Amino acid sequence: MSGEERLIYLPLGGAGEVGMNAYVYGWGKPGKERLILVDLGVTFPDMDTTPGIDLIFPDMSWLIERADQLEAIFITHGHEDHIGALGHFWNELRAPVFCRRFTGHLASRKMEERGADPAQITVVDSYPDTVEVGPFSVSFLPVSHSIPESSGLVIGTPAGRVVHTGDFKLDGAPVVGEPFDAALWHDIAGDGVRALVCDSTNVHVESPGRSEATLGPNIRDLVANSSGMMVATTFASNVARVKTLAEAGRDAGRSVCLMGRAMLRMVQAAVETGVLTDFPPVISHEEAEDVPRDNLMLIVTGSQGERRAATAQLSRGKYLGLELKEGDTFLFSSKTIPGNERSVLRIVNAFSEKGVNVVDDSSNLYHVSGHANRPDLEALHQLMKPQMVIPMHGEHRMLRRHAEAAEANGYASAVAVNGTMLDLTGDVPSVAGHVETGRVYLDGTQKIGALDGVVRGRIRMALNGHVMLNVILDEDDEPLGEPWAEIMGLAETGRSRSPLVDLIEAETAQFLARADDKVLVDDDKLDSGLRRAVRQVAVEEIGKKPEVTVVISRLG
Amino acid sequence: MSGEERLIYLPLGGAGEVGMNAYVYGWGKPGKERLILVDLGVTFPDMDTTPGIDLIFPDMSWLIERADQLEAIFITHGHEDHIGALGHFWNELRAPVFCRRFTGHLASRKMEERGADPAQITVVDSYPDTVEVGPFSVSFLPVSHSIPESSGLVIGTPAGRVVHTGDFKLDGAPVVGEPFDAALWHDIAGDGVRALVCDSTNVHVESPGRSEATLGPNIRDLVANSSGMMVATTFASNVARVKTLAEAGRDAGRSVCLMGRAMLRMVQAAVETGVLTDFPPVISHEEAEDVPRDNLMLIVTGSQGERRAATAQLSRGKYLGLELKEGDTFLFSSKTIPGNERSVLRIVNAFSEKGVNVVDDSSNLYHVSGHANRPDLEALHQLMKPQMVIPMHGEHRMLRRHAEAAEANGYASAVAVNGTMLDLTGDVPSVAGHVETGRVYLDGTQKIGALDGVVRGRIRMALNGHVMLNVILDEDDEPLGEPWAEIMGLAETGRSRSPLVDLIEAETAQFLARADDKVLVDDDKLDSGLRRAVRQVAVEEIGKKPEVTVVISRLG
Repeated sequence: MSGEERLIYLPLGGAGEVGMNAYVYGWGKPGKERLILVDLGVTFPDMDTTPGIDLIFPDMSWLIERADQLEAIFITHGHEDHIGALGHFWNELRAPVFCRRFTGHLASRKMEERGADPAQITVVDSYPDTVEVGPFSVSFLPVSHSIPESSGLVIGTPAGRVVHTGDFKLDGAPVVGEPFDAALWHDIAGDGVRALVCDSTNVHVESPGRSEATLGPNIRDLVANSSGMMVATTFASNVARVKTLAEAGRDAGRSVCLMGRAMLRMVQAAVETGVLTDFPPVISHEEAEDVPRDNLMLIVTGSQGERRAATAQLSRGKYLGLELKEGDTFLFSSKTIPGNERSVLRIVNAFSEKGVNVVDDSSNLYHVSGHANRPDLEALHQLMKPQMVIPMHGEHRMLRRHAEAAEANGYASAVAVNGTMLDLTGDVPSVAGHVETGRVYLDGTQKIGALDGVVRGRIRMALNGHVMLNVILDEDDEPLGEPWAEIMGLAETGRSRSPLVDLIEAETAQFLARADDKVLVDDDKLDSGLRRAVRQVAVEEIGKKPEVTVVISRLG
Repeated sequence: MSGEERLIYLPLGGAGEVGMNAYVYGWGKPGKERLILVDLGVTFPDMDTTPGIDLIFPDMSWLIERADQLEAIFITHGHEDHIGALGHFWNELRAPVFCRRFTGHLASRKMEERGADPAQITVVDSYPDTVEVGPFSVSFLPVSHSIPESSGLVIGTPAGRVVHTGDFKLDGAPVVGEPFDAALWHDIAGDGVRALVCDSTNVHVESPGRSEATLGPNIRDLVANSSGMMVATTFASNVARVKTLAEAGRDAGRSVCLMGRAMLRMVQAAVETGVLTDFPPVISHEEAEDVPRDNLMLIVTGSQGERRAATAQLSRGKYLGLELKEGDTFLFSSKTIPGNERSVLRIVNAFSEKGVNVVDDSSNLYHVSGHANRPDLEALHQLMKPQMVIPMHGEHRMLRRHAEAAEANGYASAVAVNGTMLDLTGDVPSVAGHVETGRVYLDGTQKIGALDGVVRGRIRMALNGHVMLNVILDEDDEPLGEPWAEIMGLAETGRSRSPLVDLIEAETAQFLARADDKVLVDDDKLDSGLRRAVRQVAVEEIGKKPEVTVVISRLG
C-alpha cells in the first residue's frame, strides 16, 4: 500500500480512556495526507496522579507539526471532553472549525476565553447539508445523547463513507432535540459504509439503553410527593434533564430556581440557539428567598461533588441566601463518575446530618445514561452494516469488548488506542504506524508535559514532606555559622521530642565540621552529604524520608 | 439521672464513617464509670485528604485520660478496621485484651509489631463462656461475616443485657466457621435485651443478603470453563472465599498457588488456629513456574488495586516468575471499595492490553458482601426484640437510615456519631454528653493530630508547588549578594520563556534594593515582602500562587 493514496484514522485522545477525545482522519499518499480533526476535548485531573493541574489535554504535537495538512476541525457536541481544548490549541492548529448551532455557541466561548477568534467557527445545518474540505465531504447527522444537538459525522472520502458516531445513544424520545432517526441512518448506510467509528463507553452494560423520556413520570412523582424544599442536581449540559426537572417542579406547584453558573449558562445557550423553546418560568435566587419551602424547587450544579459548586455549598450551609433543613429533599439525577465517589458521599452525609432526604440513582428511576449499551451498539452495527467497526472513545477494556462484539457479528474490527494509526483503505483495518502521543497539562496558565517532572515533584512533596537546608560558606570555603533548616509537611517533633529542625541543624553542622576541604569546595559532594544527613535524622526521628532541597551560598 | 449509676455508650470511631471502629461502654456514676472498649481499628488514608499518611486512628485521648477506669478491651474480629490500632494504643491504655482464637493470632502480631506484650491477650471460647470485668460480664457470640470467628458480644450490665453485633451477616452456610445460629441468638434475647448495638454498613441494600455458599458453583463453573492460567483475587482475610477459590481450582485439575504475603499469612493463621481444616494442597510460586498454564490457578492479593500487591504486579508484567498472557482469565472475587475505582480500573485495562479476560463482580455471581442488608437487619431486630436499637458502624446516612428502619418497626433508636455519649439506662436512649473526638494520623513512626497542619502543608505543596528563597544580610543588615531561589513542583519557564527562578531572583533583588532600613532589620516585614514578590512573579509568569518559604540569614 506504500506510496498509494490511503484513508487513515489516528486517535490522539479518547481511545484507551474516557475523556479528551481527538481523532484524526486523513486521505492521501503516506505522509502527505490531507487531514481533518474530529473533536478536541479535555480530561479532568485528580489528586492521585495530577495534583494542582487545571486541565489535561491530548498531546497534539503530531498534528501541530502537520498543521499545514489540516483542512478543518469538526466538533460533534459540546461536552468538555469533546470541545474543552479547542481554544487552547486553535492558535497552533489554525484550521476552520465546523459544528452545529448549540455547539457553536459553546465553542465560541472556548475560543474567546483563550484569545482565539470565534469567527473561525462556522455553524452548519445538519445532514444533508455538507461541508467540503479537501478530499472530504462532511455532514452532521443528528443523534441522541445527553447534550443538545449531538451529532455523528458522515465523512465522504475517496475510499468510501466513514460514519463517526460521536457519543450517542439510541433514543426515540430524548425530550430535547431530535430523536434517533433509524430510517435516516439506514438511508445513509444505503450506499455502503466503509467504517463505522463508534462510541464504546457503555459497551459493558448488557441491557438495552433507556430513553430520557422514561424519567419524566418518576421525577414528577417524586417531586409531587415531597414536602419541604426540593433540590435536584444533574449535569448542567443535560438540558433535557434540566427541563424534565423544571417541569416536574412547575407541575407540583413549585417555583423553579436555577443555581450555579454552568446551569444558568447552559439553559441560556439552549434558549438562545433555539433548541429549548418551552422551558418553565424561573425565578432568581433573590426571589426564591421569599418563596415558602413547599413551593420551591432548586435545580443546581455540582452532581459530582465539586467543592465550589452549588450542591457542595448547600451541603455546608447557606448558599445565596438559601439553606436546606430537616425534611427537605435532595435528588441526584445523575450518576457518580468513577473517582468522584468520596466527594459525593461526603455531601450525602452532610445532608444526612441536616436531616435532608437524599435520593440517589440506586433505584435507576431518576437517571439514564447518554451512551449506547452493548445491545444498542450491536443494533447500530446491524443498521449500518459497515465494512468494519472501529471502536472509539473508551478505556482499553471497552474498545476490546466492543471489537469482540463486532467481530462476533461478522464485522472486521481493530482495537486502536491513542497513537495507533489505522489504514482503513483495505478490506480490514491494518496498522499503518504508531505516533508518539500522551498528555499535556494545563497548570495555571502554562502547558506542561506530563513527563516534565513538575507533577512528580508535587506528589513527592505530598507523600514525603519537604526539608529545606541552607548552608553558607565564607571566602575560605569554611562554614559560616550553622546550617539553617526549614520544614513543610513534616511533624515538628519525633522520637526524641526535640524539634526536628534543631536535630537536622545539629547533624548537618556536625557533617560540615567533619567534612574535609575536598568536600567543602565541591557543591555536589556537599549537597549529597548534607542530603543524606538530613534524611538520616528524619528517618530516625519520624520514620520518613523527606524531599530535601539544599542551598549552598558561597560568599567567595 | 445525674448522680445515679448509668449505662453509657460512646463511639470514638466507626460511627459516622466506615472504618476505625472503637466503642466504649461504661457503668457507674457519671464520670466514675467503669469502662470497656470494643474494637480498636484503623482506617486508610487517601491522596485527596491524607497524602503520605500511613494509617488513620480514632483519637483515643478521652479514653487514655481515663485508662484507670478501663477494665478490658474486646476485639470482635480480625479486620484492620477493628483490630489495626490495637498495638498502636495498647501501651497508653494498658488493659487486658480478650478475643477468640483466630482474632487472637492476628492481635498478637499487632501487639508485637508495636512493642506491646502479646501476653496481654487472653483467648476465650465463645458463648456461654463469659469474661467478668468490673460490672460487666461479656461473652463472644459467633456470627457470620467475611473473616473467621467473627463475633457479636453479649454484654451483661447492671442495667440489663446489651448485644453488640460487631460486623455481621445472617449466613446459614458461611463455608468456614459457624453458621449464623438464629436459635442461639433468640435464646440470648430471651431474658430481654436492653440495647441492640448494630452494624449499619449495608443498610442501603434493600434485598436480603446472600450466603457465601452460593458462590461455590458459580466459581467452580468459571474456573472449569476457563483455559490458560486462572488467577483470582479476593480479600486475604476472607478465608472462606480463598477456600472456595482453591477448591474450584483443585476440582478443575489445577495446582493452586497462593501469592502475596497477606494471603499466605491469613491461610496459615486459619490453619494454625484450627478454623481451616481441609484446604486443598498448594504449591509454591517456584513450583508454579513449571506447571502448564491450563493446570495452574493463582489466588492473589490486591483486589483493591494496591500498587505493590500481587494483582498490580501481575498487571504490570512478570511477578515471582509468573506472567499473564492472552487468553488467561483474571477473576475479581471482590467488590471495589469506594475510592479505589481508579486503581482497580487501571489494572483491568492493563490486563485488557495483555489480552487477559477479566471477570469482575458486575454479574453478582462471584462475590457476596459480609454485611447484613436492610431486610437482614430488620430480621435481627425482630429476633432480638430489644428495648432500643443503636445503629453502629457506618456513615451518617447509614446510621440515620438504620435508625429510621428501627423506629418504623417500633424500636427506640438514636443516631449517635463519634463523640456522642448515649445514656442507655432509660426507656429510650438519651444524649448524655459530647466528647471531643477526631482522627490521629500515623505518619512514618509518629502519631500526629489531624489538625497539626502537617497534612495541610503537604496538600498545599501538591496543589501549588513550592518556592524556596534565601536571602543573606550582612552585619549592617545590607543584602549580601542576590537572593537565591529554588523551585519544586513548578514549571521551569512561563510566559516570558526566561527561567522562573531567574525572574524570582531578579524581582526579589529589586525588592531588597528598594527596601528601607526599617524593612531590612525586620524579619517579618522582609519575609512578607519577599513572599509577595515571589508570588507576583509566579502569577504573572505561570498563573500559579506557590507556597513560599523564605529563609533570611543574618551574618550579624
